[in-house]
Amino acid sequence: MSADGSRFDPLVVVELTSDTKEEAISWLLSRIRDTQQNGGRPIQLEQLGPGVSAQEKENPNLFLVGATRQRLLSGAEDLGLFKEFHDGSMRGFTCANKHNFKDFQGDGDSFLSMAECQYIIKHELDTLRARDETHVPGHQQVKLYPGKSIIRRLLSKGILIQVFPLHQKEELKRLSFSWYQKVKLSFQPLDDIRHYYGEGQALYFGFLEYFTFALVPMALIGVPYYLFDWEDYDKYVLLAAFNLVWCTVILELWKRCSASLAYRWGTLSRKKAFEEPRPGFHGVLGFNPVTGREEPLYPNTKRQLRVYLVSLPFVLLCLYLSLYIMMIYFLMEGWVLSVHDEEPTFWTGILCFIPSVIYAVVIEVMNLIYRYAAEFLTEWENHRLESSYQNHLVLKVLVFNFFNCFASLFYIAFVMHDMVMLRQSLATLLITSQILNQFMEAFLPFWLQRRRNKKMIRKVQIRKTLEDKELPLADQVRLEADMSTYLGTFDDYLELFLLFGYVSLFSCVYPLAAVLVVLNNITEVYSDAFKMCRVFKRPFSDPAANIGVWQLAFEAMSVIAVVTNCSLIGMSPQVKAYFPESDMQLILWTVAVEHGLLAFKFILTFLIPDVPKHIQINLSRLEFESLEALKKKVKPVSSLQYSMMFI
Amino acid sequence: MSADGSRFDPLVVVELTSDTKEEAISWLLSRIRDTQQNGGRPIQLEQLGPGVSAQEKENPNLFLVGATRQRLLSGAEDLGLFKEFHDGSMRGFTCANKHNFKDFQGDGDSFLSMAECQYIIKHELDTLRARDETHVPGHQQVKLYPGKSIIRRLLSKGILIQVFPLHQKEELKRLSFSWYQKVKLSFQPLDDIRHYYGEGQALYFGFLEYFTFALVPMALIGVPYYLFDWEDYDKYVLLAAFNLVWCTVILELWKRCSASLAYRWGTLSRKKAFEEPRPGFHGVLGFNPVTGREEPLYPNTKRQLRVYLVSLPFVLLCLYLSLYIMMIYFLMEGWVLSVHDEEPTFWTGILCFIPSVIYAVVIEVMNLIYRYAAEFLTEWENHRLESSYQNHLVLKVLVFNFFNCFASLFYIAFVMHDMVMLRQSLATLLITSQILNQFMEAFLPFWLQRRRNKKMIRKVQIRKTLEDKELPLADQVRLEADMSTYLGTFDDYLELFLLFGYVSLFSCVYPLAAVLVVLNNITEVYSDAFKMCRVFKRPFSDPAANIGVWQLAFEAMSVIAVVTNCSLIGMSPQVKAYFPESDMQLILWTVAVEHGLLAFKFILTFLIPDVPKHIQINLSRLEFESLEALKKKVKPVSSLQYSMMFI
Repeated sequence: MSADGSRFDPLVVVELTSDTKEEAISWLLSRIRDTQQNGGRPIQLEQLGPGVSAQEKENPNLFLVGATRQRLLSGAEDLGLFKEFHDGSMRGFTCANKHNFKDFQGDGDSFLSMAECQYIIKHELDTLRARDETHVPGHQQVKLYPGKSIIRRLLSKGILIQVFPLHQKEELKRLSFSWYQKVKLSFQPLDDIRHYYGEGQALYFGFLEYFTFALVPMALIGVPYYLFDWEDYDKYVLLAAFNLVWCTVILELWKRCSASLAYRWGTLSRKKAFEEPRPGFHGVLGFNPVTGREEPLYPNTKRQLRVYLVSLPFVLLCLYLSLYIMMIYFLMEGWVLSVHDEEPTFWTGILCFIPSVIYAVVIEVMNLIYRYAAEFLTEWENHRLESSYQNHLVLKVLVFNFFNCFASLFYIAFVMHDMVMLRQSLATLLITSQILNQFMEAFLPFWLQRRRNKKMIRKVQIRKTLEDKELPLADQVRLEADMSTYLGTFDDYLELFLLFGYVSLFSCVYPLAAVLVVLNNITEVYSDAFKMCRVFKRPFSDPAANIGVWQLAFEAMSVIAVVTNCSLIGMSPQVKAYFPESDMQLILWTVAVEHGLLAFKFILTFLIPDVPKHIQINLSRLEFESLEALKKKVKPVSSLQYSMMFI
Repeated sequence: MSADGSRFDPLVVVELTSDTKEEAISWLLSRIRDTQQNGGRPIQLEQLGPGVSAQEKENPNLFLVGATRQRLLSGAEDLGLFKEFHDGSMRGFTCANKHNFKDFQGDGDSFLSMAECQYIIKHELDTLRARDETHVPGHQQVKLYPGKSIIRRLLSKGILIQVFPLHQKEELKRLSFSWYQKVKLSFQPLDDIRHYYGEGQALYFGFLEYFTFALVPMALIGVPYYLFDWEDYDKYVLLAAFNLVWCTVILELWKRCSASLAYRWGTLSRKKAFEEPRPGFHGVLGFNPVTGREEPLYPNTKRQLRVYLVSLPFVLLCLYLSLYIMMIYFLMEGWVLSVHDEEPTFWTGILCFIPSVIYAVVIEVMNLIYRYAAEFLTEWENHRLESSYQNHLVLKVLVFNFFNCFASLFYIAFVMHDMVMLRQSLATLLITSQILNQFMEAFLPFWLQRRRNKKMIRKVQIRKTLEDKELPLADQVRLEADMSTYLGTFDDYLELFLLFGYVSLFSCVYPLAAVLVVLNNITEVYSDAFKMCRVFKRPFSDPAANIGVWQLAFEAMSVIAVVTNCSLIGMSPQVKAYFPESDMQLILWTVAVEHGLLAFKFILTFLIPDVPKHIQINLSRLEFESLEALKKKVKPVSSLQYSMMFI
């Protein structure tokens, strides 16, 4: 199919706007083809032909990108992908050594998964940096400077519409069947998910499943409290104590679990310092002090100044604003209620809902604006690594969301001291947010997608029923190009984080929360799986070694939970009855217990090792063998002697 | 001098009891000489001749151990010593590659310091393990089994009296002159100390110096509080807040400082997993899963069961006992005071002192017994690494010492609420412990040493004044063999730790504590240096990369300090005056401020990187180059092709 006659597997689609200048296209294509290494095996490119529908409105500038097997293997070596060695350990892949890897058979056709191949192509495209061009040919306004990522600049200027990896129909069918289409009691096929979507996705689904199972004991213990209406606080104390310790244990055990998964998938040993910078990273071209590769450099102090002097104050200001708006809401609410209590009419009854509605709308708008601001600021901070960029962005957004979700609950609990209202608000927030989320996440995009692709899909349906044949490539690509873009695991994690907050922060007030969250998570697995397979474009895989800053966020939540639960129990009338003579004694006891629990948590965190023993041993062995290899490397004279003797 | 005619530098002395059987001696010597590697360069051994004094009581079984330069170099390679490479990075030393190391000149005579050579010899002796011997020849009762450390068994059975490294008179004279003999304002010669005594000692002196300088700001701020008798609690709040933040900052910065030192000295890159097991470690002979070397193996779970099911309950029981005895002391004290108040006579006046004296004696006895028990238990836990053994021992002992030192102060502060008594007790404890320590640590051993060696020293003095000549080797060895043994940095660190407790825990009650501690530390530098150089045998060097569990202990102390200082300030009458209407408000504010400070501390700890950037880069580069070397290693075919082309 391709120009040089070799077999061409399309992996990635590049879509340019239909009004791109011819010279810009040919320049870009030649630059992409030009990224040849290792004896000149270039990346393969091909323009997509017209689809079956053959409408004149169709964008002709769709390009398929692929590469030969050899090129992909050498790309895997450059990226430092870790694969299973013949002795069962994980080793950095090298072409010279390829036959010593366990799954390498014959030409290595099935050695790299398609997701890995697509990641390699994406990496090649991302690291395509301008040399001496000052602008894109044919587009004077699109400026370039040495070291600037070309793809990045074309994307930001709107010339490049999108770059996305293609689905594999057969694989996808198999995966979706084993994942969500058969109703059964079994674990998710995490290895298959990783094979198809990459490590980041698989870790998310692994965490979702783990988290659901981990909450089951809390849910089981919570049920009788709800059924028998237990209000004795000595029972609540037991529940809260169990929850607090349990939260710590499950978060610690997840670290071990995640390390096992990441080791098996080969991402645990990849080191941050060796990764290539993210495409958005800019700076003066120089040499990386660790790897010696040429790449942009940006001083760390400058970045830290931006973080601490601009981003941090901005976030604090936004948090203050959010609290201020919440106070206005409570004032309005109080005023409206007093009006309604004085002369209750139909209109004052409606008036009662208005503050909540206004508050909800304002919060949503603020969330939206803040999200854009956070993305802009994090981009501006100019992080070298994708993971570091993600962590800073996630941290900014989740702190704000935490405040918006929980500030009103904190206010009700600790300023208004109204436990009945707290329980009501908690239940309302939890249930509405679950229903809204499920709806917004999976069904709405699916429905929009259906509407948008109505025509195309109808055609596909007819064709399928008529011929039961595969859709031609051109149509499949155009169909996928129109699908919504998956925006990463961020919102999914955020949802889990907030649910964890509802369960842990006020667990002694509303023990049923865990049950609701478990039920939600079970449907969440199915709706997330469905949306990954059917609603969205295939995302590029993301070689994550852990869930990043979310681990920290969940741990911070479990620390805050100790404080809130202890104070809630300390404030309860039943506990107060134990200290009839003085409040002092009560508070001192509460504080002492809280400190004890916190100390216990920290000791537990310290004592449970983050990485299981056998993986630690494997990692150490890799390091030991590496150091030994380095020791033996620099022996120019003796190795020559040896080989002369050998000859 | 030695049997095979090559030059013999005595490095280490091995002393056996004078009634050791001839066959045991010859067996041991042959086993030591037998540890030959790398083409048969054995360790050299020589029996010490009679001294000048030539008394018949002298022990004839003193042996000098040495090794050729080549043997020591290959020992350094086996141990994985890190040395500076020609490009300024730190690399594991290899003989094949020796000329690429920076300080390697000619035959490499001055490449290894004498301390390193002695450490290599010690390591060879320690790893001398029994093969198929069932007992030591000539001593039926000294049983052996395969894998048991021979030296260890001989030591525990009393056949081997001691193994110690020799001093270098010239070096020692130079070091002690630049270290403590000239009175000057300058830093300690840490690199020279490391060169002579090894990394563990040098890190202790580095920490002592750092800690002293770090306390200077606290001392300076504390002085006006004492001079002008400031009792305003708003000023005390400022002082306490400054102290709390300062403690966190200095402890974090010390980590960076220690990492820099350890990197320069080549111990930072040495990995625990690659270290050889400590001699006392026993188990079934097997192969280390990381390095593949043959060594004893012991299951981790068994060790953890011993730690958690035996050692931990034992420690808790001892702590309970200690608290119980303290309560008895306070009861006795109260009873005696009431007797004295009723009818004050001379005898009741004396009676008043009795409880304190009894308590002090009981505490000392308990400390002593506990120390033995802790050593026994930690030995029994069977830790693989010396550092892990030390950490477990240190943790056990310091928790007990912390309780004994501070429990009574806590009782006075938080149960009796008597601030005047607290200040008095604090001052008394601090000053007496300083004076006692200085006396017990340096002058007492020195005086004992003088008495013991009176004869020998007088002879030396006469000889020196008469001839001003060097002491013959035999006499020097016998002189050093009689010196006291240095028991490690444990007691020195413990003293600093307790002083840090006096400064930080109650800093808002007795601001002068920092001044006293700074003054103490300055004299401590001199007395410790003096005792290292003049009082004790030279200790074997200990390649430490950090101060181990002491870092954790100091950090834990600074966390406890936040709690104590906040409560002390919250309890003060001046602060109470701000909340006239309710104690509730006061306590809630205190708790809130305390939580804020704790959160701030943790965030600060998290934000300050533990290793300076440039060292991180160097470490990453080493790791990167190692992995690259490993990748390139397993290419048997292509490397052969390459060398054929080369030829």
